[in-house]
Amino acid sequence: MAILHTLDVDLADRSYPIVIGRDLLTGEFDLAEHVSGPDCMIVSNDTVAPLYLESLMAGLSGKTAGTVILPDGEEHKTIASAMTVIDALVAAGANRDTTVIALGGGVVGDIAGFAAASYMRGVPVIQVPTTLLAQVDSSVGGKTGVNHAAGKNLIGAFHQPKLVVIDTATLKTLPDRQLRAGFAEAIKHGAIADAEYFGWLEKNVQALLAGDTDALGHLIAVSCRIKAAAVAGDERERGARALLNFGHTFAHAIENTLGYGEWLHGEAVAAGMVMAAELSDIDATEQARLVALIESMGLPSQPPSISAARLRAAMNLDKKVAAKRLRFILLEEIGKAYVSADVSDKRLSKILARGGQ
Amino acid sequence: MAILHTLDVDLADRSYPIVIGRDLLTGEFDLAEHVSGPDCMIVSNDTVAPLYLESLMAGLSGKTAGTVILPDGEEHKTIASAMTVIDALVAAGANRDTTVIALGGGVVGDIAGFAAASYMRGVPVIQVPTTLLAQVDSSVGGKTGVNHAAGKNLIGAFHQPKLVVIDTATLKTLPDRQLRAGFAEAIKHGAIADAEYFGWLEKNVQALLAGDTDALGHLIAVSCRIKAAAVAGDERERGARALLNFGHTFAHAIENTLGYGEWLHGEAVAAGMVMAAELSDIDATEQARLVALIESMGLPSQPPSISAARLRAAMNLDKKVAAKRLRFILLEEIGKAYVSADVSDKRLSKILARGGQ
Repeated sequence: MAILHTLDVDLADRSYPIVIGRDLLTGEFDLAEHVSGPDCMIVSNDTVAPLYLESLMAGLSGKTAGTVILPDGEEHKTIASAMTVIDALVAAGANRDTTVIALGGGVVGDIAGFAAASYMRGVPVIQVPTTLLAQVDSSVGGKTGVNHAAGKNLIGAFHQPKLVVIDTATLKTLPDRQLRAGFAEAIKHGAIADAEYFGWLEKNVQALLAGDTDALGHLIAVSCRIKAAAVAGDERERGARALLNFGHTFAHAIENTLGYGEWLHGEAVAAGMVMAAELSDIDATEQARLVALIESMGLPSQPPSISAARLRAAMNLDKKVAAKRLRFILLEEIGKAYVSADVSDKRLSKILARGGQ
Repeated sequence: MAILHTLDVDLADRSYPIVIGRDLLTGEFDLAEHVSGPDCMIVSNDTVAPLYLESLMAGLSGKTAGTVILPDGEEHKTIASAMTVIDALVAAGANRDTTVIALGGGVVGDIAGFAAASYMRGVPVIQVPTTLLAQVDSSVGGKTGVNHAAGKNLIGAFHQPKLVVIDTATLKTLPDRQLRAGFAEAIKHGAIADAEYFGWLEKNVQALLAGDTDALGHLIAVSCRIKAAAVAGDERERGARALLNFGHTFAHAIENTLGYGEWLHGEAVAAGMVMAAELSDIDATEQARLVALIESMGLPSQPPSISAARLRAAMNLDKKVAAKRLRFILLEEIGKAYVSADVSDKRLSKILARGGQ
């Protein structure tokens, strides 16, 4: 076991550490030390639980641990799944000192986090993300929620975890397609906030695709640092945190129109970032760098075949809609982003039409 | 129209005013001024809507207002009702600037508040309580939530309103039984925090039961002041705010065992306060004053016929359970309460057995 990095998300009395390391789950990382009460409830899914549940429970000696195993997949990110977790908490006689532990990808983290936010108006949650996407993005920052038939994450809460534990060893069992989907959020972090990091990603594509542990550890640490800074500055996304939504207005429209689970979230974000960059006033060379990095990571740089009208309808319900007006995150240059509510509708229509008709 | 009192709940950037007045809904109170965006969604029930919805909407000129009318009754305080509100928000294309307005009693306020807390991870809510119980207690303080089959308010969120509007004229249409139920929470405020107020209640029983507007206005203002101070000092109930739960551990057990809606919440609180006082070390004369005031208000001072074993099982799931140990709010004297996790089990058993077997 080796702890590689420890970061803090600075949120006054809601601050918490992110521990990044190798073989944390199979090693001697003392998770029990971070569980304040005597009880916890582990939420996982039927793909991840067979791989890591036993190891996780070994790190909880002295605690009473219940488990809820959900079916795997974005299509199960529903209020019904959140209620399954709450039913399990009720059945276990859980109280305000019971800690929920989310073991899995972003879907598990979001459902478990929302259940923890809502049970008795909030119990502690620890995030143990096992996909790259969750490790670099969704496990940090306290956004929790489930999907509504009409749109992603329409039901949710801001509920910061007490701790995030990232074991890079879990990436060895992650399917390649999901690893690549995680790179999309890392590219996003570079594009909106850190040109040097973007350059590092360009230089390390091969190592990252090959699953090099040091390279992945560095990527996770830098992405978590960028995410943590954005969250610390704007916990409830009233301002600068919104920059993290770069590509996401388009991505959510793609996912929502295709049906959840057709494209992975990271894949939709990849195509969405290219669309958002086109809507921006960046140089053609910068645009080309973004497209090249996305493609070299094996990610789509074009939306799937969906009509502009359907994409637009889905976008209008997206939660970034403020006062009936679409806001977009645009790039000034690689490493610098801004919010704009003032984009040319003609240009937007042209980009939306890229998907097909 | 006459504004009688304006109070502030002091919670830094989540501070908000409570406006108490006569004929606010039918008068010229400018509710629209407090709705930040162009849209709002009024949530009410099928008892209150026919009486006040039209007046409320007249005060919203210039705004787009949707409505959701829920069936009346505690048995409808479910996650399904909260989802009905969220579905309506989705259907209206509501966004983060849409204000939810809760028009009704505590059930409507709790459901609408939880839906507002969860929709897009939080939209503004304005509380317009129309029952005395909601006016003196549940509309202030940000506790929202719905019931689970296994217990009251097990699913919820802390979500402070932007404004509370209390029109004493709505009490004219309130059934007597519900008016009396509201007095229970006022008695509670006096018992835990303000001996002078308790004395004032004792002296004004007749005026209050007769629905005297000045007396009711004073009661609402003092109760809101006590509630607001407790909330401002401890928003998330980690300490002193818990004193507001005086009588509630027993009350929730009574309600949960009888089935929601059999006894009104205030009735259960009345009996619960007498049980909690018996568990306390107060003088027999103080105990007698509490019982006398409760009975003079036409409220029950004894629990219904339920076995001690069933009451205890229900209490163990109550959300005030901390680390598997029951905590009770006890009285030192009228006007002074404290939290205790150390009560004699023998004494507790004796009190629980009061209900029957």
